[in-house]
Amino acid sequence: MSIFLVDEYKEMEPYVPGEQPKDKLYIKLNANETSMPPSPKVFEALSKKEIWNMGFYADPHCRDFRRAIADVYGLTEDEVFVGNGADEVLSFILMSFFRRGMKIYFPDITYGFYRTYAKTYGLDMEEIPVREDLSVNIDDYMDLKGDIVMANPNNPTGLSVSVDDIERLVAKNPERMVIIDEAYVDYSGETCLPLVERYPNLVVVRTFSKSRNMAGMHVGFAVASKEIVADLNSIKFSFNPFNMNSLTMAAGIAAVKDTYYFDKCVKSTIENRENFKAELEKLGFEVIPSKANFVFCKSDAIDSKILCDKLKEEGILTRHFADERLKDHLRITIGTEYEMMVVLIAIKEILEEARENDKSGIKKVI
Amino acid sequence: MSIFLVDEYKEMEPYVPGEQPKDKLYIKLNANETSMPPSPKVFEALSKKEIWNMGFYADPHCRDFRRAIADVYGLTEDEVFVGNGADEVLSFILMSFFRRGMKIYFPDITYGFYRTYAKTYGLDMEEIPVREDLSVNIDDYMDLKGDIVMANPNNPTGLSVSVDDIERLVAKNPERMVIIDEAYVDYSGETCLPLVERYPNLVVVRTFSKSRNMAGMHVGFAVASKEIVADLNSIKFSFNPFNMNSLTMAAGIAAVKDTYYFDKCVKSTIENRENFKAELEKLGFEVIPSKANFVFCKSDAIDSKILCDKLKEEGILTRHFADERLKDHLRITIGTEYEMMVVLIAIKEILEEARENDKSGIKKVI
Repeated sequence: MSIFLVDEYKEMEPYVPGEQPKDKLYIKLNANETSMPPSPKVFEALSKKEIWNMGFYADPHCRDFRRAIADVYGLTEDEVFVGNGADEVLSFILMSFFRRGMKIYFPDITYGFYRTYAKTYGLDMEEIPVREDLSVNIDDYMDLKGDIVMANPNNPTGLSVSVDDIERLVAKNPERMVIIDEAYVDYSGETCLPLVERYPNLVVVRTFSKSRNMAGMHVGFAVASKEIVADLNSIKFSFNPFNMNSLTMAAGIAAVKDTYYFDKCVKSTIENRENFKAELEKLGFEVIPSKANFVFCKSDAIDSKILCDKLKEEGILTRHFADERLKDHLRITIGTEYEMMVVLIAIKEILEEARENDKSGIKKVI
Repeated sequence: MSIFLVDEYKEMEPYVPGEQPKDKLYIKLNANETSMPPSPKVFEALSKKEIWNMGFYADPHCRDFRRAIADVYGLTEDEVFVGNGADEVLSFILMSFFRRGMKIYFPDITYGFYRTYAKTYGLDMEEIPVREDLSVNIDDYMDLKGDIVMANPNNPTGLSVSVDDIERLVAKNPERMVIIDEAYVDYSGETCLPLVERYPNLVVVRTFSKSRNMAGMHVGFAVASKEIVADLNSIKFSFNPFNMNSLTMAAGIAAVKDTYYFDKCVKSTIENRENFKAELEKLGFEVIPSKANFVFCKSDAIDSKILCDKLKEEGILTRHFADERLKDHLRITIGTEYEMMVVLIAIKEILEEARENDKSGIKKVI
């Protein structure tokens, strides 16, 4: 720490991204990437001419990109704010509408970034416990005295709250901002986007990292009232006016316009998820019904941490959380059909080994 | 403005980027872009394989990119912080080391973003007047009670303070942070980078937007002590952990490694600048000796605003500033040899027209 860091940040807790080992090649099912390439239109958009064009500043208002998103979702450009990932978009939202000491609520089991941001920037956060089955009870949020951020579907459970429930929440609390992080919504089929037109206290955040197969490009956007988007742009123009570069926007525009490829990829991920869930259940796993591109599962036959480690030995990365309420489960991202086939083979082998050899740490033989 | 915007920001003054008209094709000499494409290595780096790879998250620690920069400048990776443009890097610096009410000093004539940031985030800014000849007098900064940010070479004058002067400043004030924004330094030949090893209160900010011909990619970096860089990374990991995407870093790595192309482009811009200056002087212009990729000039024969407008009619964009102390001058970016040839023809024609036709607004006939 330098002598110059301001006091407020001396207790900060920066976000710790999941492990990304590079020691050998892995099947990556630990970070909710899709294992699919971006749209062929993205490959075409990143032409030699577009690369040449990087000598000139990109449009800081990001008009073409915002219009492309607006067109696809039946919105107007001034209801769309774009950024370098949903995290940047969320940070601009929190920076614009929250100050030190202000109350913010979110589920105690959810995406870790909300806690990081709240702690670093001194928000008065309160984590609302999820139910025993890890689901969010919307009634717990109805009469709070501050704003709310909620991932829907939630991570790492894959569970979602219905749009009707979200509507009840925003309708009952017109003076509280409700931020719904819809990173995984395309695998759920039920979005809050149509509510934005009616409820000026609702902000919906989206990402290109999942259903657009563009995690490495880190592109996100928010949909909200014109007034909220104007505020976000004012903050952006004071923090980093040219936040999005020309290549990122060219890729984003091409991706969002290609609804055919998008639908195809989402459909295939949902199919793979449902097949994988059925196969896991045949092997005795308990699998939370997921609305996302991952499953959260557990087996009485093997400790989840051991399963995670053994899969890693086989070159397959999955994500185990040490948190007391999550440690019995394992989160497995849904990759391609072939990847899920290979993971199943590995899991079967590991379970058989466990059955034959009840070593220490292996809880029980089926 | 929404009802949710926090009070502190209600008086904010977002940065207003220079005009970027798209009504027709222009020779763009208004935004200090270089009119040259990025390195051929950048074209190669943005391969189909690299585009495919955008399905997976990029390294949030940006290690390969930071190492590539460190190698070129004889630094270590932990002395380098990277971001989406020098503006984002500056914002992370100001966010980390300044809080509301803290004193910040900068010249009254300089890059407008410092003022924007300071006003929006409530810093107690004090603008130190430049000399009559628009140069910065370093002695004005020796005994101040706060931190300093300074563009060197300065914009829009192109004038620079010597490294010896900067060293006197940082040596005399070990407890004050001095941020030197070296956006244009590659056209000057004199950098503060070697001072960073000796002075832990010095932060040097650089950009790929000028000498790397990558304005549209908006890539920037800071060089400072390991402690300062660690603080910046902590703030970044709390604000937007994955700030830089995979394609941007691939392009950045390729660009910074290609020192041959870099040297060639910088040399050509300096040659074009000196030739253009000499030609302008032959036409009776007064041209401030520039250490940047632009010239700041004026002529008694024509009002600078009128010259700017007439050049625009000819399809050439330049930048006129309305500020009282700058309004007599015109800033012309140095483009390619051919662009400068065409601008000179246009200026000659406009001056001849002025000579023949002393209409209203044209101040004087040569």
